[in-house]
Amino acid sequence: MMPKDRLERVLDALDHDLEAGRERLFELLRIPSISTDPSHASDCRAAADWLAAELAGDGFAAEVHETSGHPGVVASDLAAGGLHVLFYGHYDVQPPDPLDNWRTPPFEPSLVTDPAGNRTIVARGASDDKGQLMTFLIACRAWREAGGGLPVGVTILLEGEEETGSLGLGSLIDAVADLPRVDLALACDTEMWDRQTPAIVAMLRGLIAEEIEITAAARDLHSGVYGSAARNPLQVIAEIIAGLRAPDGSVTIDGFYDDVREVPEDVAASWRGLDFDQEAFLAEVGLKVPAGERDRSVLEQTWSRPTCEVNGVWGGYTGEGTKTVIPATASAKFSFRLVADQRPDKIREAFRSHVRAALPADCSVRFTDQASALPVAVPTDGAHLSKARQALAAEWGREALVIGTGGTLPAVAEFKQRLGLDTLLVGFAQRDDNIHAPNEKYDLASFHRGARSWARILGALAAQ
Amino acid sequence: MMPKDRLERVLDALDHDLEAGRERLFELLRIPSISTDPSHASDCRAAADWLAAELAGDGFAAEVHETSGHPGVVASDLAAGGLHVLFYGHYDVQPPDPLDNWRTPPFEPSLVTDPAGNRTIVARGASDDKGQLMTFLIACRAWREAGGGLPVGVTILLEGEEETGSLGLGSLIDAVADLPRVDLALACDTEMWDRQTPAIVAMLRGLIAEEIEITAAARDLHSGVYGSAARNPLQVIAEIIAGLRAPDGSVTIDGFYDDVREVPEDVAASWRGLDFDQEAFLAEVGLKVPAGERDRSVLEQTWSRPTCEVNGVWGGYTGEGTKTVIPATASAKFSFRLVADQRPDKIREAFRSHVRAALPADCSVRFTDQASALPVAVPTDGAHLSKARQALAAEWGREALVIGTGGTLPAVAEFKQRLGLDTLLVGFAQRDDNIHAPNEKYDLASFHRGARSWARILGALAAQ
Repeated sequence: MMPKDRLERVLDALDHDLEAGRERLFELLRIPSISTDPSHASDCRAAADWLAAELAGDGFAAEVHETSGHPGVVASDLAAGGLHVLFYGHYDVQPPDPLDNWRTPPFEPSLVTDPAGNRTIVARGASDDKGQLMTFLIACRAWREAGGGLPVGVTILLEGEEETGSLGLGSLIDAVADLPRVDLALACDTEMWDRQTPAIVAMLRGLIAEEIEITAAARDLHSGVYGSAARNPLQVIAEIIAGLRAPDGSVTIDGFYDDVREVPEDVAASWRGLDFDQEAFLAEVGLKVPAGERDRSVLEQTWSRPTCEVNGVWGGYTGEGTKTVIPATASAKFSFRLVADQRPDKIREAFRSHVRAALPADCSVRFTDQASALPVAVPTDGAHLSKARQALAAEWGREALVIGTGGTLPAVAEFKQRLGLDTLLVGFAQRDDNIHAPNEKYDLASFHRGARSWARILGALAAQ
Repeated sequence: MMPKDRLERVLDALDHDLEAGRERLFELLRIPSISTDPSHASDCRAAADWLAAELAGDGFAAEVHETSGHPGVVASDLAAGGLHVLFYGHYDVQPPDPLDNWRTPPFEPSLVTDPAGNRTIVARGASDDKGQLMTFLIACRAWREAGGGLPVGVTILLEGEEETGSLGLGSLIDAVADLPRVDLALACDTEMWDRQTPAIVAMLRGLIAEEIEITAAARDLHSGVYGSAARNPLQVIAEIIAGLRAPDGSVTIDGFYDDVREVPEDVAASWRGLDFDQEAFLAEVGLKVPAGERDRSVLEQTWSRPTCEVNGVWGGYTGEGTKTVIPATASAKFSFRLVADQRPDKIREAFRSHVRAALPADCSVRFTDQASALPVAVPTDGAHLSKARQALAAEWGREALVIGTGGTLPAVAEFKQRLGLDTLLVGFAQRDDNIHAPNEKYDLASFHRGARSWARILGALAAQ
């Protein structure tokens, strides 16, 4: 049994050293490690180098690992023996655009007190996922400095391609496979239920992303000369996008729902018991009416039902004023969130068939495959999960809820498939963190109590 | 009667001085006078200054006139007495994008021999309208230098906002209204029927342009958190665009066709007699199937029927890779070609009503009015037109066809409304000039024989 005073010393150290931990996070946030933009490749490498150096400084055997894309970091400290956990996080971030909407520069982190009085860390990646992964790193540091060393064996895997589909993750997992057998994966890339209530996520959606380019004429045309007679690819792509959703909010792709499983009744019942106000959820972002499948609640729409969203459209003249052009091409980006038992490859092919069938005369289409991840469900009845719930309850004074999430974490499916590992998904983000949007933030309380939570979870997992 | 040898000397001078005339055109083409882009305002002024200086050098009383937007040029030489013609042209050009598709820089004019052996002047504006307007200017110069002076009174009006709706044209027309009464307007901004056959245009379509911005949520959203539940403005704008056209190619806006007049049977019969190969017309730009109203020929679709085209769409993430965002806004630019007796204001309001009615819950729309021009028909039976046809026949050895065109020239409607003037529309552009597109060009033969044609027309108009 872990001596109680050892944990107390670790928690005291986290309270005492909060400012130093925040400064470490700010250093990481200043690196614009945007994985989707090739011009930021050197920044991604700089972030990996920075993290490996930090972890080495904390006593880990840390290495930057090359992948097919941006490098990852794998760091181990197995001195404790016994249980071996694999912590997952990602240092890459989303592009900051639209830049004009940021109140402070996205890569110059700042502490801002919000109108409700919460102190927040504002920067791209503050929440997703640099702030979250740093909660685990400073918890480990506190165990080493104030607790006599880590209480369990810890391997940390940090990737740089989560926002772009984790295409190089496999080679990082290969590096982990060479280590002593791991018992449990941990990840910190999810939300709390609310500011008072911790949450463990047991259901993650999968993802595919596709880009299409529609071509009609061999060149841009003058709308006065060719208008109406010539096929307009902007009109065509609009018709394709419009045709993907039925008036009842469902997705029209043939076979799209074939492999969708309904949530088990006990889970559905627990969701119904959640204190979730879907009007407030939408109102927080200025909306009132759920746009998805008409006969599904917002929790179902965002946790247990698949989606089809267009994430970007472009073509023709988009500058100031007028240009009466019929462009030769039009493009769009799509992403689909998948749920069990949908297969990414099958849905991708169904989408492509749908688009091809919708193409009118004189048009061709080029598809670009951009991301793929399986949906995953995590068992909710194990001993590890039970210990983590107790640790979270001790920190927050409330039971942790076991919930779903609309997001995607390819690593979790990979850990299960490649290493046979279940993942304990605990995160401290808030719903209003503006991840993937301007003015992303992480509550200073999430950072502080998130680190304390991990310190407690590591201690709890070490206990027999 | 004009002495025959005077005209011959003028034509000889045009042959002899072709190289000098081309060099003058190249100077004008080097000025990137893109009217729609505010960052090129000084270039528009430079083009106006250059033209006024050229015309003053040719003996015109020439002045740069301020307008609400880019300045215009008004220049007169009324020494001949008798008939007074008003020539119209525009020095502004379309944006050159997509820049990557140009084989030579758009504002560095060059002489290129095309695969068919035609020598062509390649630059943005080479055809529309700098090359065309210069045919008239060098014809005037030749009359002054080799013909003993202009054979008729000539006022030249050159504007810098044709590509953006001619919003400042009114103040230039005010300047012309102070001059002695004008008998006839001339314009050089249209096409030949083919490389051998000159054409006079007797029907021009009107235009309105609109930009819309659809807003849903108060900020960009993460598609994993909000996907499906939150209204996606890219989906909404696609549905609006898709809904503008019926499967039969017609426009669905309520009342859109109410004021459309059918072409008179004699005109329709003359069109049917034209040697127009609609398959070849489409094939030249890589297309096969007319996309407009199913029961209308391509000539009708592009000359006598109104159109609704989307000219640009943008929103969400459009960079490389993936960003799983639901953007807060999506935008599109539209233009409508109008035919008699459609009224621009009425169609604009009908479009806006259509969009408002199509808006789903949680969305708002902002409209921006970008251009407006009345459709116009020119009488085809006057003495001036008859003289011009004879002059064109003398130059080209073929009768000039009287045709329609899909394009728009706001000045022609303005001349009719404000000055009571009909316009003789003669142009030497070719269908493959790539106007409004990359690699715009003007045949050197169009430039040379266009100038000869104007020299002949001026001589013919002077004859009793």
